[in-house]
Amino acid sequence: MRFPLDWQARALREDGPSPWFPARVPGNVQYDYGRMMGWGDINYAENVTLFEQTENYTWEYRAALPSACAAGEQAFFVAEGIDYRFDLLVNGVLRKSHEGMFTRVEIPLQPGDSELTVRIHPHPKSSRSAFADRAQAQDSVKPPVCYGWDWHPRMLVSGIWQEAYVETRTADYIARCEPFYTLSQDLTRADIRFEVDCAAPVEIALFDPDGNPLGTGDCFVLENPRLWWCNGQGEAALYTYVARTAGHRVTGRFGLRNARLVMTQGAWDEPSRFPKGRSVAPIQLELNGRRVFAKGSNWVNPDIYNGHIERQRYETLVHLAHDAHMNLFRCWGGSGISKQAFYDCCDELGIMVWVEFPLACNCYPDDAHYLSVLEQEAGAILRSLRSHPSVVLYCGGNELFNNWSMMTDQSLPLRLLNKLCYELDPKAPFLMTSPVFGMAHGGYTFYDPDACCDVFTLFQNARNTAYTEFGVPGITDLESLRQIIPPGELFPIQNRGSWPLHHAFGAWGDERWLCRDVLERYAQQPLDSLQKLIDLSTWLQCEGYKAVFEEARRQAPYCAMAVNWCYCEPWITAAGNSLITYPTKAKPAYYAVQAALRPVMASARIPKFDWKAGETFTAQLWLLNDTHRSAQLHVEASLRLGDTTYPLLCWNSGEADENRIGPSVNWVLPDVCATEMTLVLDAGEYSSEYRLCYRSRGEQRVSRQLNV
Amino acid sequence: MRFPLDWQARALREDGPSPWFPARVPGNVQYDYGRMMGWGDINYAENVTLFEQTENYTWEYRAALPSACAAGEQAFFVAEGIDYRFDLLVNGVLRKSHEGMFTRVEIPLQPGDSELTVRIHPHPKSSRSAFADRAQAQDSVKPPVCYGWDWHPRMLVSGIWQEAYVETRTADYIARCEPFYTLSQDLTRADIRFEVDCAAPVEIALFDPDGNPLGTGDCFVLENPRLWWCNGQGEAALYTYVARTAGHRVTGRFGLRNARLVMTQGAWDEPSRFPKGRSVAPIQLELNGRRVFAKGSNWVNPDIYNGHIERQRYETLVHLAHDAHMNLFRCWGGSGISKQAFYDCCDELGIMVWVEFPLACNCYPDDAHYLSVLEQEAGAILRSLRSHPSVVLYCGGNELFNNWSMMTDQSLPLRLLNKLCYELDPKAPFLMTSPVFGMAHGGYTFYDPDACCDVFTLFQNARNTAYTEFGVPGITDLESLRQIIPPGELFPIQNRGSWPLHHAFGAWGDERWLCRDVLERYAQQPLDSLQKLIDLSTWLQCEGYKAVFEEARRQAPYCAMAVNWCYCEPWITAAGNSLITYPTKAKPAYYAVQAALRPVMASARIPKFDWKAGETFTAQLWLLNDTHRSAQLHVEASLRLGDTTYPLLCWNSGEADENRIGPSVNWVLPDVCATEMTLVLDAGEYSSEYRLCYRSRGEQRVSRQLNV
Repeated sequence: MRFPLDWQARALREDGPSPWFPARVPGNVQYDYGRMMGWGDINYAENVTLFEQTENYTWEYRAALPSACAAGEQAFFVAEGIDYRFDLLVNGVLRKSHEGMFTRVEIPLQPGDSELTVRIHPHPKSSRSAFADRAQAQDSVKPPVCYGWDWHPRMLVSGIWQEAYVETRTADYIARCEPFYTLSQDLTRADIRFEVDCAAPVEIALFDPDGNPLGTGDCFVLENPRLWWCNGQGEAALYTYVARTAGHRVTGRFGLRNARLVMTQGAWDEPSRFPKGRSVAPIQLELNGRRVFAKGSNWVNPDIYNGHIERQRYETLVHLAHDAHMNLFRCWGGSGISKQAFYDCCDELGIMVWVEFPLACNCYPDDAHYLSVLEQEAGAILRSLRSHPSVVLYCGGNELFNNWSMMTDQSLPLRLLNKLCYELDPKAPFLMTSPVFGMAHGGYTFYDPDACCDVFTLFQNARNTAYTEFGVPGITDLESLRQIIPPGELFPIQNRGSWPLHHAFGAWGDERWLCRDVLERYAQQPLDSLQKLIDLSTWLQCEGYKAVFEEARRQAPYCAMAVNWCYCEPWITAAGNSLITYPTKAKPAYYAVQAALRPVMASARIPKFDWKAGETFTAQLWLLNDTHRSAQLHVEASLRLGDTTYPLLCWNSGEADENRIGPSVNWVLPDVCATEMTLVLDAGEYSSEYRLCYRSRGEQRVSRQLNV
Repeated sequence: MRFPLDWQARALREDGPSPWFPARVPGNVQYDYGRMMGWGDINYAENVTLFEQTENYTWEYRAALPSACAAGEQAFFVAEGIDYRFDLLVNGVLRKSHEGMFTRVEIPLQPGDSELTVRIHPHPKSSRSAFADRAQAQDSVKPPVCYGWDWHPRMLVSGIWQEAYVETRTADYIARCEPFYTLSQDLTRADIRFEVDCAAPVEIALFDPDGNPLGTGDCFVLENPRLWWCNGQGEAALYTYVARTAGHRVTGRFGLRNARLVMTQGAWDEPSRFPKGRSVAPIQLELNGRRVFAKGSNWVNPDIYNGHIERQRYETLVHLAHDAHMNLFRCWGGSGISKQAFYDCCDELGIMVWVEFPLACNCYPDDAHYLSVLEQEAGAILRSLRSHPSVVLYCGGNELFNNWSMMTDQSLPLRLLNKLCYELDPKAPFLMTSPVFGMAHGGYTFYDPDACCDVFTLFQNARNTAYTEFGVPGITDLESLRQIIPPGELFPIQNRGSWPLHHAFGAWGDERWLCRDVLERYAQQPLDSLQKLIDLSTWLQCEGYKAVFEEARRQAPYCAMAVNWCYCEPWITAAGNSLITYPTKAKPAYYAVQAALRPVMASARIPKFDWKAGETFTAQLWLLNDTHRSAQLHVEASLRLGDTTYPLLCWNSGEADENRIGPSVNWVLPDVCATEMTLVLDAGEYSSEYRLCYRSRGEQRVSRQLNV
């Protein structure tokens, strides 16, 4: 039996304790405090900065403990997760001190235990960091994102972020019931066994994905089991079990699948010449023996208040990914680990999950205290996730082998994580970080000033086994902007106040993520209204994302992953790379990506975005097909320019169960009065369109005069 | 007390057991059997092929057990290593079955135990391999080299290869006494503690490197300890301890040092552009806070008969390396692990040791049996090596991430080894394999037909953090050849019989390692005698090795290692890449390498080996200095050509405690009657000479006519 508690909280400030205020659990104490203080929606204007003053507060939660035990029962206080360093006191006496938000904690209760206090200490701030930035998180397992990121305001949330309750247990309480299985090589047989921690005999009943009973026992052999497949490749079949004693009952689900990382095709052929290095690292996901091109996005915390996310939010977001033909989330380490409901949704909808431990862009140390907390937290994470069929890959953390982090293959935290993954989930692949050799992250803008080219060109000249971060920024829609920017600041846009706080300026260099420099490069009219800026920015974001996703797919089978930065956002940003505006609003770019990820589609490799009258326009036609099933295209390619549609060519692809390259268009662009043109690939349900920049001779003269 | 045993052995053949014959222990039973059969020296002619018929024999050793125990004692049979799968029987009754040659085994003996039998099974041959080659070793932890390599004949040796004896133990026997230490950050303080396994109290006395007593206890604090340094960087200081109970005494040595792998200088600056991969893996050895350029060679088993190697052989070979200014052996995994005496010699002479586990050029499997034997063997190896100061690096095995092996970062054997090293020797760096990202292996010839250039050019165009294998082959000296090639086969050389068996042909493609194709490229006279072939081949080997070692040093600090393939050889090869002819004879190439590894020296980057009259000869002058101490050169550079020495330039380097680049020579080569020329850098003790190929105009005409 579980008993919810009625919580209050207070801040222990330098000037003494605040009044007690009602506290939401699961939740974040900063939210409750801000409500009491009348600080308003953190999304709006500069409200979030009010919370800086609370960073060094100690927080206390309190709740009355029920006298809940019947005869033969033992009561426990259980917290599934408390963020991040805390003490548990009963009747004012310390019972437990703990560091780490991903480990479930519990303490036994005695008769007479009447009041529980949870005292939460201020978040760690590394003494190795001189600045109030992410490096303050480098000595702890607290996810660093809340220390501030280029798309996340600084906001050190803490609190009882997961369920917390009193539970009474009988002697036959089932502490753990966990399924393990092996699939035969040919996938026609599953051997399932359950591991159980319980003082009494447990009866386990197994049910097939339709709910039909398969018998009871603790070992099962299934002939021709229904496999778990990711979105686009088959059914995400889930088996159910019910474990039961006289006094306790536990249920769970699991899926049967083999997931591995194998070499992408062609990768073993390199390097070819002496002196010869190693071949690249394997990054092709193979599910049930089938190579799967991973299409997806980087999942970040979908709310600043990690405690406020409930199943409904996960469901909406995961459904959107499913509907965009995605099959993978890379759950970025900087944001930490989601609640169980997230993985449940991914199990159900066939979204594979790449789980990253809470390390990102820092140099986490080899010291004993950090390693011991990491071992505890990673162990808890692994035990809680390993039976989810969606969890196909663990990773040590984000960009740790680059010069802004400076960890290496020798760093003990990563060697420890390898060891723990090997011990606790040996069949699952493990990457020390992303990117590893062969993979790449970035770029993050439509136009790259170092490479002097746009994303079309940049990615066509790249050759990587996986693109696991790439971004094209856009300005947020006007309605959402009005929720965060006060009316007086909306236009003209200025680099002070709400715009930069919401990442329009100064997030990464001066001009990110609004990207005035890039917008001006493509503008053919004065950008004299906010809507014009939004429209141009949205155009670039849509076409840029399509270009990269489709190019990565065209680079298969050497390339095996296209995962953009990023999927969702934790609050409403003024501009940024996400596909979804907080909390769950699909951007136009979401629909562009949805189009670019259709399992079968016509695609064009277009060498660049902007074209001029008199130039020879070229585009290479492709059939994209990642279904492993046969498909065929009949494409009529044409160019819409001004009022005219110019037919270019017809192509019948023939039957193919993989990508197929088609003919190329070559066509001299006429001089007409227009600022854009659209390449149309008319192929029924597989049709695609590319809306490109066009400059007439007159416009080119103007540009030269303006020195653009 | 230890009691040696008197051993006999026999073969259990298909036609019944052979007679018993005397057996050398430590040793290899094939040697004893061959002696009984009168098969002669395995180095000579094709004798080694006689042993193929013994591959599937089971072997038995037997020895009478002494009645050795006094009251209160327990007797054990102890074997430090038996190669590879075996049973131990006492009085005909099975007492123990075991797989693995690197784990010490022991069985307790009882009164009445009078005869011991060691029954050794045939070596494993993987069912996944269709051919009699190294792939037969892919399911076992038997070092694969004896299955045949391009420089090692197939010869499946087995036997009691390490010490084996009866030992009587009192109750206060010291099963283990092992030192552990930490050095303070500034290296001014060492905290030493001993871990002891003993049922009685143990007194441990510590002595400084000069033998002065430092007291007794099990924890020691040393102020300003004497550190262990590698050759060329300081003293290889060794502390001694004596652990004692009433009935037992154990002594040992250890050194105090910190060893790490860090990024080479400049490596963090890359990659610079999006899409951006990871930075290379760290490979710079840092010893006691000082970056050390690793100069060394690949150690392979110095005898086919691994059981016959004794301390004297190790001593001679390690001394030669020391005298050649080497500071590192990469102990190649294919050959397995040496006896303790090897590491003792390296401890004493300051040769750092890169230990590779017994995996090489195969795809070792993820299966449970293999992993369990690997875990046992690797654990035993780690426990036996971790207190040697010379052991600075562990590595999973050789070239496992290349397409002739096809293991990856995800392979469970390598993840297991990473885990075991983390658990048992966490301060020591661990590489999954060599090469990892940034490093390179090869080439192995003087002229590379794919790159169409010689080793001078090839390595000047390469850019790697470490060159941990590269080879330039040479033909063996005439005296040694006479020990292996019957007089009638010596000349003209033919591709049948003893020459190919001794790796002159067919070792790696048709022409390796004699390399007729390469020799003919540089010959300016008919190669009509064996001595002419040897002289030309030796010239190329000497100049080739100098060119690569010096170029790798010039590429510091981005490059951190130059380790050639290979150092010694297990029998007399007819041609090959080693610096030492079996057993301990330094080749001319050894002395060339010795010159190229002098801590301070004048060096020239010469773009290629062969030059023509009329060409502009160029060479870039360098001061090489890896001592971290200041040095200065005054160089007079000149060219000896025909009878004339042409002065080219003088350079005063100024003081430098690292490498320094100097001026370049540019000089049009005159047409004289000569076939070689020598660049002389006259700089006193730091002088260097480079003997290069020269072609007069007359010679060039001949070459054109011959279409060379």
